[in-house]
Amino acid sequence: MKNFYPIKFDIKNTIPKNLGRTGILKTPHGEIKTPAFVAVGTLASVKGLSPEDLHILGAQVVLGNTYHLYLQPGEDVVASAGGLGKFMNWQGPTMTDSGGFQVFSLGFAYKKGVSKVAKEAPTEAELEGKEENFSEHSSLVKIDDNGVTFKSHIDGSTHRFTPESSITIQEKLGADMIFAFDECTSPLAQKEYMKKAVARTHKWAKRCLDARTRDDQALFGIVQGGRYKDLREESAKYIASLPFEGFGIGGSFDKDDMKEVVELVNKILPEEKPRHMLGIGEVEDIFEGVQRGVDLFDCVLPTRLARHGVLFTKEGKYNIKKTTNKEKFEKVVKDCECYTCKNYTKAYLHHLHRSGEMLAHRLSSIHNLYFMMELMENIRRSIEQGNFAEFKKEFLERYKK
Amino acid sequence: MKNFYPIKFDIKNTIPKNLGRTGILKTPHGEIKTPAFVAVGTLASVKGLSPEDLHILGAQVVLGNTYHLYLQPGEDVVASAGGLGKFMNWQGPTMTDSGGFQVFSLGFAYKKGVSKVAKEAPTEAELEGKEENFSEHSSLVKIDDNGVTFKSHIDGSTHRFTPESSITIQEKLGADMIFAFDECTSPLAQKEYMKKAVARTHKWAKRCLDARTRDDQALFGIVQGGRYKDLREESAKYIASLPFEGFGIGGSFDKDDMKEVVELVNKILPEEKPRHMLGIGEVEDIFEGVQRGVDLFDCVLPTRLARHGVLFTKEGKYNIKKTTNKEKFEKVVKDCECYTCKNYTKAYLHHLHRSGEMLAHRLSSIHNLYFMMELMENIRRSIEQGNFAEFKKEFLERYKK
Repeated sequence: MKNFYPIKFDIKNTIPKNLGRTGILKTPHGEIKTPAFVAVGTLASVKGLSPEDLHILGAQVVLGNTYHLYLQPGEDVVASAGGLGKFMNWQGPTMTDSGGFQVFSLGFAYKKGVSKVAKEAPTEAELEGKEENFSEHSSLVKIDDNGVTFKSHIDGSTHRFTPESSITIQEKLGADMIFAFDECTSPLAQKEYMKKAVARTHKWAKRCLDARTRDDQALFGIVQGGRYKDLREESAKYIASLPFEGFGIGGSFDKDDMKEVVELVNKILPEEKPRHMLGIGEVEDIFEGVQRGVDLFDCVLPTRLARHGVLFTKEGKYNIKKTTNKEKFEKVVKDCECYTCKNYTKAYLHHLHRSGEMLAHRLSSIHNLYFMMELMENIRRSIEQGNFAEFKKEFLERYKK
Repeated sequence: MKNFYPIKFDIKNTIPKNLGRTGILKTPHGEIKTPAFVAVGTLASVKGLSPEDLHILGAQVVLGNTYHLYLQPGEDVVASAGGLGKFMNWQGPTMTDSGGFQVFSLGFAYKKGVSKVAKEAPTEAELEGKEENFSEHSSLVKIDDNGVTFKSHIDGSTHRFTPESSITIQEKLGADMIFAFDECTSPLAQKEYMKKAVARTHKWAKRCLDARTRDDQALFGIVQGGRYKDLREESAKYIASLPFEGFGIGGSFDKDDMKEVVELVNKILPEEKPRHMLGIGEVEDIFEGVQRGVDLFDCVLPTRLARHGVLFTKEGKYNIKKTTNKEKFEKVVKDCECYTCKNYTKAYLHHLHRSGEMLAHRLSSIHNLYFMMELMENIRRSIEQGNFAEFKKEFLERYKK
C-alpha cells in the first residue's frame, strides 16, 4: 500500500485536564498555527476579498467548496490553472470539502433556513412523518448506497457524486487537505435514518481511501452520527481505524449536546492527527470545540454576516445598519486594529451598507475575519500560557453581554 | 467682493498649433497633473475600490455626485465627517458635480439608455412633438426659472434644488472643486428649448457665484448649448466673463461635432484656468478633448463597463465573459502592469464574472481605471516630449482595430 505523508502535525501545548491543544500543521503550502479558523472561499474567492486582504488580516488557510467549483468553473479548469491556490492566487494552504454537505443543504434544508445546529432537539412528534422531507427523496437530491444524484442550483441540470468521483474532483482541485465524501443529514433526522446514513458514510470513507492517488494531499475522514451519542461513538471508532491523515467532525448537533458529542468523538480519534469541525463558527462553539481538542474550524458566518452589516465585537454581534450609526464618527469597533477599524468610521460603513455599495461588504468582511483570526491567536496564546480557562470565561462573559 | 484663491493652475507644456496643454493643478488636498482622468465615486465610494486601490492604480482626484450624496447619507453627515475626502478616507483632491446632470438623467433620459453623446444629430422629424418628453415636465423632474423639483429615485419623495441650495450642499460636502448648478438638456432638445435652458444656466451661474461663502473651494462655471454652435459660443462668452476659478463643458454633443464644439468653447474660455469636460470618458473623445485644451475628464464608463466584464485594452474593449476565456491561463491584458493583470489570469477573471463574485467587479475596475490613468500619463508625456499628434495617431489606430 502506498504511503501518504502530505502533512505533518506537531502538538505544542495542551490544556490541562482537557483534550485541547496548540500545534503546527505543516502542509505543502506552508504552516498553519492551530487551533485555526479557515476562511471560506466557496467559488475560489473569499467574497469581495483579495488574497492580500486575507494575508493582511491574518488568514492562514482557505477552503473551497467542491460542489460549487465542480459546477463553476469545473474541476478541469482549476486543475489546468495549477490547482485552487494558483487559480485564485492564494499562496498559502488550501482545503476543499467533499460536496457531501450539499446533500444536506440542497436537499432538506435548501432555502428553509435550517441550521446545522438545532437550538433544541426536535420532539418525536415534530419528527413524525417528516422523514421524507429530508431523506433520500427530496426534490433536488436523491441518495443511494453508491452516491448522490442532484440537480444543479444554477441551471437544474442533473449531476452525480460518488465517493470516487468526489476524490477525483478534489484531486483535480488540488487542495492540500481534502475530505472524504459523506452523507450529512438533517438535525431533524430520526435515528433509524441516521443509522443508515452513518453506515453509508463509513462505506464511502473506505472507498475514498481506495480511490485516492495523490500523495501530496491529506485526506480527512468524517465522523457522522448527528445528535446520537452511540452513533457518534460508533462512527468515531470506525473512522479512526482507517488510515486518514486527519479527521472532520461533520453533520448536525443539538446546541446543548455539541460539547459532549465533540468530547466523545475526540477522545476516540487519534490524538496525533488534526481534527476539523466542519461548518462551525459561532464564538461560543469555537471555545467549546478548542477545549475539547478541535484544531480547525471553517464557517461562512463571519463573511455572510458581514455582508448583512453584522459585525463581531467583543461585546457580541453589532448591526452597523442601525440608524443610530448614521452620524457616529468614531472607530467602527473600539479596540480593533483591523484595516477597516483603523481607517473608517461607523457613519461611513453605515452609509455604505445603506447605499448597497460593494465596499460595505469588503470592509465588513475584513473586520469579521480579522476578529476571528485575532480570537484564534488569543486562544492559542492562552493555551501556551496555561490560562485558556480564564481567557474563555472572561471572553464569553463579555461577549454574551 | 471677497477673493477666492483655492486652486492654482500652472500650464507647463502646450501642443503646437492646438489648444492642448499639460499643467499642474494645485488644490487644498494636493496636486493634479493635467490632463487628468477623474475617478467617479458617486456615493463617496468608487464602487468596490478602497482609497488604497485608487492610490496604487494612479488616481489623482475623486468626484462625488451631489444629487446622490444629498439623498444618501445627506450633506450634513458628510460635513460632520469633515467633508467628502475625510468621510471616505481619500486624502487626495476631490470634486463634486452640481446635481444639474440629474435633471437630464432622471428626467428625459431616465432608464431610456439615452447617451450624452448622440451618434447622429436627430432630424427635425424625430424631434417633432418630442419636446415634452425631455423638457420641464417629465415625470420625475420639473424645471422652472428658479430651480428644479424632482423625485428621489430611492423613495419617490419630492426634493428641490436651486442654484443657492446646490452651492450650500456642495459647500457642506466640502470638495476642493465644485460646479455651478446648470440645466443639462437632452441631445434631442430643439433649439428653442435649448435657448431657454442656456439663459437659465447663465442666470443660475451668476446666482451660484453670489451664493458661495467658502474660500477653500474652487467654483467651476458650466458652458452649455448642446449641439448648437451659436449657443455654445454665447454660453462660453458669458460664462468666461464671470469670476469662476475653472470651467466645465457640460451637456450633450453630436459625436461628429464634439471636436468643433469643444474647440470653439475653449478658444473663448480664459487660457489660464482649468477646463473640465463633464461625463466624457471614451478614449477617442479624451484624445480629441485634450488636443483642444481640456484638462480634466470624469466618467463612470471605466468602472461601469468593468462591472459588466468589459475591459479596456490597447486594441479596444474586450469582453472577459466570453466563453473562449474559460481556460486562458494567461495575463488578463497583455503588456498591462496593473495589480489585476500582474496577479490573475483571464480564466480566473472569467470565472469570477460568470459566478457573479464581487471580486470580479473590483479586479476589473482596478484594471480599467489603471488603463485610463496610464493613458493620461502617456498623453501628458507625449505633450511634454512634443509628440502628442504621433502618439494619438498610433494609439487610436491600434485601439480602433
